[in-house]
Amino acid sequence: MTDLSGAPLGPHDDDKPHEECGVFGIWNAQDAGAMTALGLHALQHRGQEATGIVSFSETGPEARFHTHKGLGLVGDVFGDARIMASLPGTAAVGHNRYATTGATLIRNVQPLYAEFEFGGLAVGHNGNLTNATNLRRALVRRGCIFQSTTDSEVFIHLIAISLYTNVVDRLIDAVKQVIGAYSLVVLSRESLIGVRDPLGVRPLILGRIPHPDGQVGPNNSKEAWVLASETCALDIVGAEFVRDVEPGEIVIVDNDGVRSIKPFGDRRGRFCVFEYIYFARPDSVLDGYGVYEARKRIGAELARENPIEADVIVPVPDSGVPSAMGYANESGIPFELGIIRNHYVGRTFIEPTDQIRHLGVKLKHSANKAMIEGKRVILVDDSIVRGTTSRKIVEMVRAAGAREVHMRISSPPTTHSCFYGIDTPERGKLLAANHDTEEMARLIGADSLAFISLDGLYRALGHKEGRDAGKPFYCDACFTGDYPISLVDLDEDSRARPDLLTGAH
Amino acid sequence: MTDLSGAPLGPHDDDKPHEECGVFGIWNAQDAGAMTALGLHALQHRGQEATGIVSFSETGPEARFHTHKGLGLVGDVFGDARIMASLPGTAAVGHNRYATTGATLIRNVQPLYAEFEFGGLAVGHNGNLTNATNLRRALVRRGCIFQSTTDSEVFIHLIAISLYTNVVDRLIDAVKQVIGAYSLVVLSRESLIGVRDPLGVRPLILGRIPHPDGQVGPNNSKEAWVLASETCALDIVGAEFVRDVEPGEIVIVDNDGVRSIKPFGDRRGRFCVFEYIYFARPDSVLDGYGVYEARKRIGAELARENPIEADVIVPVPDSGVPSAMGYANESGIPFELGIIRNHYVGRTFIEPTDQIRHLGVKLKHSANKAMIEGKRVILVDDSIVRGTTSRKIVEMVRAAGAREVHMRISSPPTTHSCFYGIDTPERGKLLAANHDTEEMARLIGADSLAFISLDGLYRALGHKEGRDAGKPFYCDACFTGDYPISLVDLDEDSRARPDLLTGAH
Amino acid sequence: MTDLSGAPLGPHDDDKPHEECGVFGIWNAQDAGAMTALGLHALQHRGQEATGIVSFSETGPEARFHTHKGLGLVGDVFGDARIMASLPGTAAVGHNRYATTGATLIRNVQPLYAEFEFGGLAVGHNGNLTNATNLRRALVRRGCIFQSTTDSEVFIHLIAISLYTNVVDRLIDAVKQVIGAYSLVVLSRESLIGVRDPLGVRPLILGRIPHPDGQVGPNNSKEAWVLASETCALDIVGAEFVRDVEPGEIVIVDNDGVRSIKPFGDRRGRFCVFEYIYFARPDSVLDGYGVYEARKRIGAELARENPIEADVIVPVPDSGVPSAMGYANESGIPFELGIIRNHYVGRTFIEPTDQIRHLGVKLKHSANKAMIEGKRVILVDDSIVRGTTSRKIVEMVRAAGAREVHMRISSPPTTHSCFYGIDTPERGKLLAANHDTEEMARLIGADSLAFISLDGLYRALGHKEGRDAGKPFYCDACFTGDYPISLVDLDEDSRARPDLLTGAH
Amino acid sequence: MTDLSGAPLGPHDDDKPHEECGVFGIWNAQDAGAMTALGLHALQHRGQEATGIVSFSETGPEARFHTHKGLGLVGDVFGDARIMASLPGTAAVGHNRYATTGATLIRNVQPLYAEFEFGGLAVGHNGNLTNATNLRRALVRRGCIFQSTTDSEVFIHLIAISLYTNVVDRLIDAVKQVIGAYSLVVLSRESLIGVRDPLGVRPLILGRIPHPDGQVGPNNSKEAWVLASETCALDIVGAEFVRDVEPGEIVIVDNDGVRSIKPFGDRRGRFCVFEYIYFARPDSVLDGYGVYEARKRIGAELARENPIEADVIVPVPDSGVPSAMGYANESGIPFELGIIRNHYVGRTFIEPTDQIRHLGVKLKHSANKAMIEGKRVILVDDSIVRGTTSRKIVEMVRAAGAREVHMRISSPPTTHSCFYGIDTPERGKLLAANHDTEEMARLIGADSLAFISLDGLYRALGHKEGRDAGKPFYCDACFTGDYPISLVDLDEDSRARPDLLTGAH
Repeated sequence: MTDLSGAPLGPHDDDKPHEECGVFGIWNAQDAGAMTALGLHALQHRGQEATGIVSFSETGPEARFHTHKGLGLVGDVFGDARIMASLPGTAAVGHNRYATTGATLIRNVQPLYAEFEFGGLAVGHNGNLTNATNLRRALVRRGCIFQSTTDSEVFIHLIAISLYTNVVDRLIDAVKQVIGAYSLVVLSRESLIGVRDPLGVRPLILGRIPHPDGQVGPNNSKEAWVLASETCALDIVGAEFVRDVEPGEIVIVDNDGVRSIKPFGDRRGRFCVFEYIYFARPDSVLDGYGVYEARKRIGAELARENPIEADVIVPVPDSGVPSAMGYANESGIPFELGIIRNHYVGRTFIEPTDQIRHLGVKLKHSANKAMIEGKRVILVDDSIVRGTTSRKIVEMVRAAGAREVHMRISSPPTTHSCFYGIDTPERGKLLAANHDTEEMARLIGADSLAFISLDGLYRALGHKEGRDAGKPFYCDACFTGDYPISLVDLDEDSRARPDLLTGAH
Repeated sequence: MTDLSGAPLGPHDDDKPHEECGVFGIWNAQDAGAMTALGLHALQHRGQEATGIVSFSETGPEARFHTHKGLGLVGDVFGDARIMASLPGTAAVGHNRYATTGATLIRNVQPLYAEFEFGGLAVGHNGNLTNATNLRRALVRRGCIFQSTTDSEVFIHLIAISLYTNVVDRLIDAVKQVIGAYSLVVLSRESLIGVRDPLGVRPLILGRIPHPDGQVGPNNSKEAWVLASETCALDIVGAEFVRDVEPGEIVIVDNDGVRSIKPFGDRRGRFCVFEYIYFARPDSVLDGYGVYEARKRIGAELARENPIEADVIVPVPDSGVPSAMGYANESGIPFELGIIRNHYVGRTFIEPTDQIRHLGVKLKHSANKAMIEGKRVILVDDSIVRGTTSRKIVEMVRAAGAREVHMRISSPPTTHSCFYGIDTPERGKLLAANHDTEEMARLIGADSLAFISLDGLYRALGHKEGRDAGKPFYCDACFTGDYPISLVDLDEDSRARPDLLTGAH
Repeated sequence: MTDLSGAPLGPHDDDKPHEECGVFGIWNAQDAGAMTALGLHALQHRGQEATGIVSFSETGPEARFHTHKGLGLVGDVFGDARIMASLPGTAAVGHNRYATTGATLIRNVQPLYAEFEFGGLAVGHNGNLTNATNLRRALVRRGCIFQSTTDSEVFIHLIAISLYTNVVDRLIDAVKQVIGAYSLVVLSRESLIGVRDPLGVRPLILGRIPHPDGQVGPNNSKEAWVLASETCALDIVGAEFVRDVEPGEIVIVDNDGVRSIKPFGDRRGRFCVFEYIYFARPDSVLDGYGVYEARKRIGAELARENPIEADVIVPVPDSGVPSAMGYANESGIPFELGIIRNHYVGRTFIEPTDQIRHLGVKLKHSANKAMIEGKRVILVDDSIVRGTTSRKIVEMVRAAGAREVHMRISSPPTTHSCFYGIDTPERGKLLAANHDTEEMARLIGADSLAFISLDGLYRALGHKEGRDAGKPFYCDACFTGDYPISLVDLDEDSRARPDLLTGAH
Repeated sequence: MTDLSGAPLGPHDDDKPHEECGVFGIWNAQDAGAMTALGLHALQHRGQEATGIVSFSETGPEARFHTHKGLGLVGDVFGDARIMASLPGTAAVGHNRYATTGATLIRNVQPLYAEFEFGGLAVGHNGNLTNATNLRRALVRRGCIFQSTTDSEVFIHLIAISLYTNVVDRLIDAVKQVIGAYSLVVLSRESLIGVRDPLGVRPLILGRIPHPDGQVGPNNSKEAWVLASETCALDIVGAEFVRDVEPGEIVIVDNDGVRSIKPFGDRRGRFCVFEYIYFARPDSVLDGYGVYEARKRIGAELARENPIEADVIVPVPDSGVPSAMGYANESGIPFELGIIRNHYVGRTFIEPTDQIRHLGVKLKHSANKAMIEGKRVILVDDSIVRGTTSRKIVEMVRAAGAREVHMRISSPPTTHSCFYGIDTPERGKLLAANHDTEEMARLIGADSLAFISLDGLYRALGHKEGRDAGKPFYCDACFTGDYPISLVDLDEDSRARPDLLTGAH
């Protein structure tokens, strides 16, 4: 029996999988530090707990790296002009971090930076390594001293101890030893490097800023180059989309332009399907497919698969809005903003006393009674993880006078945890891992509950035949348990809790 | 010629009129301080710069008032359990404040509190007095020493020097001397008092929390009472709506229940119409009329008055969404989220250097290219103040590939400043005060521009005959220049800048 | 039986009477704000909890007052160049504050500033009013609203409500209503004013900075003028001593020079004798008598009155050093630094856990064993208040191996509380108020204990006949109970605790 | 020509050599963290810029290390009971740090802590390595990643990469590779270890806390053990002095008691003579010789070597006091506190504007005019480094009216920089390195100047024959240039500035 009560009211209690970090890098641009801050701002949805930038300035008294990191939003950490002035140079990398509270130590905030024999190097990592505990143990045995508790730091040490001479060879040496999901941005004195794991689970794209009128940029070159987790970070810095970095590809940007290395050969990837469903910003284009459009189509497919009579379609804001619109268009039932989201939540939540906790206070959502009272309501949301939020939302909608409440979910049931960079609870806490749909409906208090099917999801994303079980196009392990990358640390000792490692980057 | 360039990128540069403060008060409730924090959270949209609570505890070592104030969001200021524990008692008043940066001194943060001969008194004020400078000068001459630079402090001194004995008589004495717009919540040892100015320009409502099963509350009474700026603050504390406080009414809540005094007799009010258009939260009900519904009707009326052929209706988020939905429903043109709003803006903005300022960086909005490219777009927004934001939005939508951009505004042209509690720029900076619609269209770069008519606005709000110029139902001075309350300080010396007073509360 | 155990280990647990504030003012000087910061630094021994400066600049966009206050040392509060730049002008007043912790609210930090009909006024107060509660009650009844909980604020309100026109007349009006001990520095737009109460209990001196080579200063005058609590504040700003402000005198410094008013006529004063014993800095000259010299003579007199055989004279640092030197010179017994003081105590103390509290940890003092072991030690200290520190010191010296420990005190027994600006505990806690010398010796654990006699003290200060009981030269109420200023608030209701008023300024 | 003007007014502008760090460790004590805070407080004079503690708790959910570090005084960093509660356990090490401002990064604050294959290890270091740059370069080449810019971190990496199995063997391996001056306290899970370099340049002593009545302590053992830089840290925690750790000795404290290893065999040391002159606290006993007594004897020897007729002996406080007393006793000239030191300097200094800089403001010292005016004054100080402070002091004493000013210095001329853990300026800035005594007298403005001779210093310290040039007893390189430990980094490239390394620990 799943206990849905007593969930804490915290900033991350919205019962969603949590992203997972965003990365950004830029080469050959004036004000590279400020450009990176803007790019990170556009990627803020991928991580709000901490952020950092490392820039490199070639000129001045001495060429060197500059770092600033902090806990909080990009605007708060980099909002001070003096801080931006402390990040000079024409190249920079940056990172947004999501992390569970306890581990948000400043020394864990990325990009990680270290000085090597060949000079300084900064690394920003989105993803999660599945053999980090193993590697770390071996490195410590060898005499490496870790500064942080992040799995990302193994990259740094593998590069440091590599016997190869130059940065790129050392980096290849390193990525050949790690197993997991990773999109990296790496900054050395000579180059900006982007790396995507062999299956390309996490996104990484390449963009370009042409210099106006063919003018020459700071490094005698005509264009600046950008690496970013999503295309939405290109628009804000005036860059144009060039292409996705490919699975297993290393892209090297230096003053001679862009080179590509594929140390793992050509690979078919397994991009994370949840990026379409929930993580990515609606205006991003992933793998050639627009996220907003994708969500509307998923909503339409959901309506086709799971129709029901009702008076009004109400999205659970904000992520449920496009799929609810798709559902409404397909079903012909009116779309109304029946739930209002309060965006002014602040960094800390008001902790209700026991006395008023029973009020079931909802700090983020409130019901727009006029749109709900006396009506048959279809709520559209993107996922059910623990189910606690869904239960509260249904309760709130009923309290506002809904006659019926039907829940429609724009993803298949989330039955498995993610080990590739998404913060999900362990399986035992996933509602869908322990209950069938009917039980789930009862537990969240809905009159009916339905999920899009796995094939329906693939169809909505343009794969007309649905999912090809033999060689699935996406990583969909959270819905299927089909983990495309081996879970080394976990398999080796499934009882061990990887305490040294935080889950997501 | 209006200069639309060079507007600063600041947290309040969204070129909107700015609210203006929210008030909340509660009587006879366990955890009155925490309840007030929740109420203020629900009213956060009315003021984000500062917030404060004064509670009164009758029990304990000694009956006394407790205060905590701070700059920032309610969740940040009251998010610490120790702070909430420092606000014990069964009665409290609270205040959210909007203020231009310079004047956000902590001593200006409300509720204001003072100790009088009869005991302590806390006052929270939403509105603006038009004779505050005059009154202040007279009070200083008499020997009163002001602690703050707010106009609200005159209430405190008028109460202090009143020759009447009890609090209510002193308060009546005070409100008879002030001229302006004001909704007050006042807390003394014996009562919670709500006051609305004779024209009821700013909102104030009364709510009630019935004790479960008729149980008796802390003060041997069966119910708790709530005063708040908007109904959305009732839901979050589990209160039910009782009625609007009437124009010119003083409502006194004490352990005997609720009393009403009308020192100005019965009056017809002139409620602020802009509350419907922009300020109030969509799920609030003002004067019996739901805000979300009102906005959709305004959008529909706007579509009827100003139709144009187009491919897509795009709201300027977030406030333009309901009217855009109304416009879309009426016009039959598809509604799409063609502009994405970034809600993670943080407390401080990234200040772009001059180098990248020309990028026209938009930190709050980004275009959802896929919905815009190659299309004829109708943008729906609620108002144009300086026009700077509108110009940037149009520019952004064009840059995303729109074939045509038509702007539709769900309010009449804003031609006059507000002196009743809304922070608007002086007339010289109001685009509509200096240009006709055609010029405005050109200045913001739109292919066409149209506003809802004044009569259309009244019709959408249920006044079928439109505006009755002889006795208009609302205060619509910002559109008409018809100021229902005399502008004493301004008239007396129109050249003087009321430097001592901050504009809005 | 007096309980000497369990005294808290806090920054002010040194069991001394506590000063009591220092004031400083300057007129007609470049960088008046910085000069005042220096003067306050030299007066830091008179109050370390908080400090503030109000400056007045006549030039610039508008003539106006500038304020900065903070908790902590002068160097910490005014150590930032940007803060000093925010205090421009050629005139300033400043204040150092001692206060018991709870009441160190920033709004209590002086100088107090208010805007009156005639303009701004800043007031810094050293001393304590004995009818402040009475006056405050009357002022509140009249409608005055107090901002702080200090007795000093009554000056501000009495000036505000005075019917006289100019500042000086209003000030005279105010000081005629207050009863107590006070040295004031007052800054208006037109003048710097110094005031000393009719008995001149607290010190105040006048100094002058001649402009080099007769050059003309900022206000077309040839010299700058300084008011300060002690002469040590003159040296640091390059000023020369002019004279003591006289008891009951008002000194007005403006651009025409210096004027004097004596609203109470000519008076013989009763200067605080404890200033010589403990409060004043050794290099200050009070009333024409050098403090260091005075202490040495007191020590010599103490030796004559209370000789005993011993091996070594050890001062309790730092205040006991000069009197120990005098004692040593007179007795011929060697003087050694047998107790070392740790000056790096920081703002907060390490709170020992219960486990180690029994160690009797002494954070401020340590025994210099080599000078003590096996010896007969005479400890010289300046006073015994509660006796807790004396007991610990004796214990420490014994633990270091002293064969005998004799305590000699350079003041008579402290038997009464001070109500004139010195923070002393209530009588019940004064060791000498409840025990004879023999009992006291036993309680502090000394082999013998002796105090200088009252007559001896007067003789050491140059009054050869000792104390003239008919018209004593000093205020020595703490030794005699002979209170020269009536204790109005206390007499009226001796049971009332003056909670609204902090004790010392 | 030496420029004595324009020296900055900063907290460390007292023109003294700067210590240099203090270390403390404790084993088998309740509240080991709090005991360490107390010990560090007693060692505060050895470093005021930063402080840190690492404790180890064996019990609780899991045995582990706890760290807290901060910038500032011990009382400020560890004054919060919650912080102390976060340092549980029965063993701890701590460190006080002096550092030049720029490098006071929190990651440089010691003890340094790292996790190794064998578990965690914390290291606190007092001293300076002379081959750190060389070692660091080699370690980086091997793939070690440095976290800090301190030379102390090489210990950590040498231990990490050692091929030996246990901590002690690894530590021996490490100290055999480093060259320099170092006293270390090291904490592992199994033991507390003290290490002193082969010449014992920096002090380190062993103490013991017997458990009361033979009770058994936390680890079934009867006593707690303490390591500390000076004996003054024993008194505060109730420990008794056992012995000095010997040059080149490693002392291992574990639950079986105390063991000693001498990896370098038996060695005669070269203890730093400046510890007697200036650094150590007067109540400490170094190498069996009391510091206070030593200073008095040095003063007496100075008087014998350099007599002159005068009216008064005035110490430059605080360090000059004991030697001035010795000088006065020997010469028969009266000793007076003619210079008063202001101890309330705060963390930041008031920065004087240019306008008042010419005042020659002395924030730390003021002249006690009454003791100086018209007199022939002998000033006694402990050293002259740059000479800037001496010049100001002489100037101040002259301004106070001294007829003659003679300066006597209780150390030989400081002609060489220290590379063993004392922060001295480079040779070019040492006044005595560039001028003879007569010139120095002229530059500082004294009527005469004399230093104690090198032989006189040795005599005063009990070496009747003076200094044995063949095998000197102390390290006196700063007076002689006779550097007993090779200066590897410096010799290798005497032009290189060791930028990566901060000078002192």
